[in-house]
Order: sequence, then structure tokens, then C-alpha cells
Amino acid sequence: MASMMFTDCSSSTTSRLFHLNRRNGTSLLRQCVGQLRFQTTASGRGCIRSSSSPISAISVILVGDRKDSATYVRNKKKACDSVGIKSFEVCVAEDSSEEEVLRSVSGFNDDPSVHGILVQLPLPSHMDEQNILNAVSIEKDVDGFHPLNIGRLAMRGREPLFVPCTPKGCIELLHRYNIGIKGKRAVVIGRSNIVGMPAALLLQREDATVTIIHSRTKNPEEITREADIIISAVGQANMVRGSWIKPGAVIIDVGINPVEDSSAARGYRLVGDICYEEASKVASAITPVPGGVGPMTIAMLLSNTLKSAKRIHNFQ
Amino acid sequence: MASMMFTDCSSSTTSRLFHLNRRNGTSLLRQCVGQLRFQTTASGRGCIRSSSSPISAISVILVGDRKDSATYVRNKKKACDSVGIKSFEVCVAEDSSEEEVLRSVSGFNDDPSVHGILVQLPLPSHMDEQNILNAVSIEKDVDGFHPLNIGRLAMRGREPLFVPCTPKGCIELLHRYNIGIKGKRAVVIGRSNIVGMPAALLLQREDATVTIIHSRTKNPEEITREADIIISAVGQANMVRGSWIKPGAVIIDVGINPVEDSSAARGYRLVGDICYEEASKVASAITPVPGGVGPMTIAMLLSNTLKSAKRIHNFQ
Repeated sequence: MASMMFTDCSSSTTSRLFHLNRRNGTSLLRQCVGQLRFQTTASGRGCIRSSSSPISAISVILVGDRKDSATYVRNKKKACDSVGIKSFEVCVAEDSSEEEVLRSVSGFNDDPSVHGILVQLPLPSHMDEQNILNAVSIEKDVDGFHPLNIGRLAMRGREPLFVPCTPKGCIELLHRYNIGIKGKRAVVIGRSNIVGMPAALLLQREDATVTIIHSRTKNPEEITREADIIISAVGQANMVRGSWIKPGAVIIDVGINPVEDSSAARGYRLVGDICYEEASKVASAITPVPGGVGPMTIAMLLSNTLKSAKRIHNFQ
Repeated sequence: MASMMFTDCSSSTTSRLFHLNRRNGTSLLRQCVGQLRFQTTASGRGCIRSSSSPISAISVILVGDRKDSATYVRNKKKACDSVGIKSFEVCVAEDSSEEEVLRSVSGFNDDPSVHGILVQLPLPSHMDEQNILNAVSIEKDVDGFHPLNIGRLAMRGREPLFVPCTPKGCIELLHRYNIGIKGKRAVVIGRSNIVGMPAALLLQREDATVTIIHSRTKNPEEITREADIIISAVGQANMVRGSWIKPGAVIIDVGINPVEDSSAARGYRLVGDICYEEASKVASAITPVPGGVGPMTIAMLLSNTLKSAKRIHNFQ
């Protein structure tokens, strides 16, 4: 049985984003966003005020009327409010032109009161996602998706201005729980630009020996069983079974997959890529789904925005 | 015994850069630079003329008077001459300022007759290598070291303008000898910005399952033994022994390490990271040192310069 579980103990991710319990009842709670709030509102630090005139601000560009995108944007806005980061939102109609979105990006690039720019994905199919993401100033790319940031992340001796939020949150979880990375065998399942690839680069920067597993890997079970640390971001419900896990491994499950559940109010429930019931009997630590990595993504977005504001205001 | 060996059969890498022999004597020779020369000088293609007015040109900036750097630059110049690529060379004194080097870079960036810019490394310690490499226009970065190129290399769905020459040469060797990469287990030993890291990214783009081994890896022998393809670029003479190799594996040895040898005219000889004598008895294919990967690096530099000239001249 996993001796440590990363659990969201709150129904409101904006009030208590992150919690850890041990089975023995000893709480090792360190609330990431709570800490961030302390850091950002403490008058002695003075870098951000939770007042009506915050000096850190993020702009979100939402194109179209997808309900899921609107929900994500609303959650980000709530989280910003909770730590005193001002958020602007620009809604662009589904049938707008790419140029209109680019104009919004350009306006925020030029606006010195904006420290972070988020373009909510996915974009309508008639728009070129690359063009639009590339247009975001690298100094305000709080999502960390700009290829220049990814290049710096990949290179030894270089530092990205921002690290993509979800993989940054995964590593932060390991740090917060004092789980050593250096010299460990790590397996990342999935090689997306948003999670898998940057997570592998981050693990390698911390001196893990990393293998990335993907759809063309012939023996994923065997390779995963060698890992001390597993980060899965593949989007397949319960793909990783207990038999794939080395006893004592640490598991970070990024997958959020809906599965039918007639007993649930909405007719479905959310599960991860890892079969939690089986894996938690073998692993030493595991994140639940939902409530594990998800809240960390938003926390890291706030952290990136804070970092950007501090850089722009030349605040150490 | 390796059934296939990548062997340089010529003492002059500028005349015959690359050769393959099978032990059974069947030559599968395909001279990479020979092919490139054909491709670039064939009047029907017309993209480069091996005349006095070539339309492809590379500029090399050599700072200081290191003998090894001067030799590398001379070899590159010879290779350019052999395929009709014009090469300019700017020599900057060892005690010059960083600004002087940056001025040279800037001049070549602005010169439409220059399609590739090379800054020969290493630079004197009083210069910031990052600053200078970052100043090279990404459209003329034929070394492929710009973080924007590396970022695009790392990202799915993005294309780098240029791929670093040595790892590109490693992959080209595998392609030329019809060695499949997709679905194979690959181990890259070493994680340098110049070879190991981009080699791993390239293997992954070709759907290998890649593990990078480095100085903090606890059991490199065991992990290497799982590999179908090994690329080593760690700079330690004969580090990888025969016992590390899975029977039938394919080995690309990028290391070039001098070891004392009183029987050699210069008192030393060059060996790779792989113990060739042992590994060649287990592997199915192996590159020798010298004469394996080295000539490919120069060939890929020419290939990158050709690609740049074609892009700038809008030649398909």
C-alpha cells in the first residue's frame, strides 16, 4: 500500500489547492498556493499586493465558446483573484480571423502592465496555433510553450524564462515531498509538447536517467517496471496496471480521463492513466485523479506570472 | 563479429569521406559527400555551381590561434571547396573583445551572399559563448545550436531550420545503411548540447524509445545492454566494453579520445568511447574511430549550408 498519497482534501481548488496526507495521519501539508500567497502578499516582500492595484497581471485570450475552455479560464481567474494577481480576459468570437487574435496578443505584448499572456487552447481549426503561440513575447510566455523556452529547457547551461506549468507542477510535487530525483530511473509515459517532453527534460536537468515511452514503444510494461519515478501523461484510462509498477516507485499521474459511471451524478467519473487501486498497493507515493496534478498546474501558472512580474519590475 | 562496419577507407576525408564494407567483401559504398557533390553540382539541379561564382557560401569566425581549431576550420574549408561551396574566414585575435566578434557575426547576418555562419568553438574564456551563438541569425545557424532550433527539434509538429551536424550525421548513417529506428530501444551515452541531447531528440522523432545515460546514471552497463542502437558521445576512451553490448546492437561511436601509443608516430592514437575490439565481436554494426562519425559531421555541415542557400534562394 502506498505509504504516501498526494491528495486534494478540499473541494475548492482555489482555496486549498494542494494537500498531503500520510496514512498514519501525520499531515505534511504544505499548501503551494498558500505559500505563494504569503510570498506575494507579505508587505515586507512587496512584490505583489492583494489590493485593488496589484502589480502582477495576466491576460487570457479565449477564442470561441467551448464550455471546457471557459471553465478552465474561469478557474484560472479565480486562482489569480485568490492570490492578488489581476487577470484580464479577452473573448474573441469563434469565427474571428487569426489576425484578430494576433492583434490581441500584440496589444498585450506591448502593454507593460501585463506580465503574462495565456492563449487558451485549443483554437478553432482555421487558426494556426503555432503562429499565434509564437507571437506571444517570450518574456510573457507564462505557459512556457514558446520553442525558445523549450530549447533553453533542453540545453545544459541555459535557463528558460518559463517552464510549462504541468510538468513544473510534477517536479514541484517531488520537491515538496523530498523525493530525490538525482540518479533515479525515471519513465515518462507520453511525449506531448505540453507535458511529456518537458517533464522528461526537467527530470534530466535534475540528473534522473530518463526514458520516454510512447505509442511506438514495444514493451512499455517492462520498461515502466524499471522506474523509480513514473510520470504518466498519455490520456488512456487506467492504462498502467499494478503489474507495471516496481515496488516502492513514486507515481505522478497527469491523465484525466472520463469513464462511464452510472452511480455518478453526471454519469461519468474521472480517472487517471494509472490504475489507482492496483498501483497504490505497490507504489510508495501516488497522486490521485482528480486533485493531484491538476491544482498544481494552476499554482505553477501563478508562480510563472509572479516570476515574470518580478523580472519586469527588477525585483529580486 | 560485427557483420557490418562503417569504415573510412581513405586517408583523405575530403576526397572520400565515408565508406562501408561488409566483412564478406560486398561493398555497399554510398559516399555521402559524393552524393552531395552530385546533388549540388549537377547542372540540371542548378542549386550550387562548383565554379568561381558559387551561390552557396559559409562564413567561419575563428577567434584566437588554437591549433586544433585552425585544423578544424581548414578541414571544413577543404570540404566546402570540394563541393563548390564558397567559404569566407575571419580570424579575430585572441585578445579581441566580445563586441568585435559580435560585429563580425552581425556583418554576416546582414550579408545576403552568406548562407551559413559558423563560430568555431571554444571561444576564449573572456567571451560569453551564449551571447555570441545567440547572435547568429537563426536562418544562418548551420551548426543548429541556436536554442530556437533546439526547441523546434524537441517539439512535435515543429521543424528546426537546422539540425546540429554531428547528431544529424549519426542518424544519416543509420538511414544510409537501412537500419530501422522506429520502435527500437536506443541509448544515448552523454547529454551534451552538441551531440547527446540533440541525438536523443532526433532518435525520438524517429520513434525510437530513448534513454539518455550520463555521469549520474547508476547502472549504465545494465541500461546500455538493453539497447538496439547505441550512440556514445561521452569522451572517455574505451569506456563501453563488450559486456555492455546486446548481441546484434548497432553502435555509433562519436568519441574521439587520444591514448598513449609509443608505436604511433605522434606518440598517441585516437580511440572512441566504445572498446572497438570487444564491441565489434558482439554488435551487428559499428563505426570506427577515426573515420566513422567525424567525416559525417563535415558532410552534414555542407548539407545544412546547401539547405540554407536553397531556402534563401527559394529553390525547391
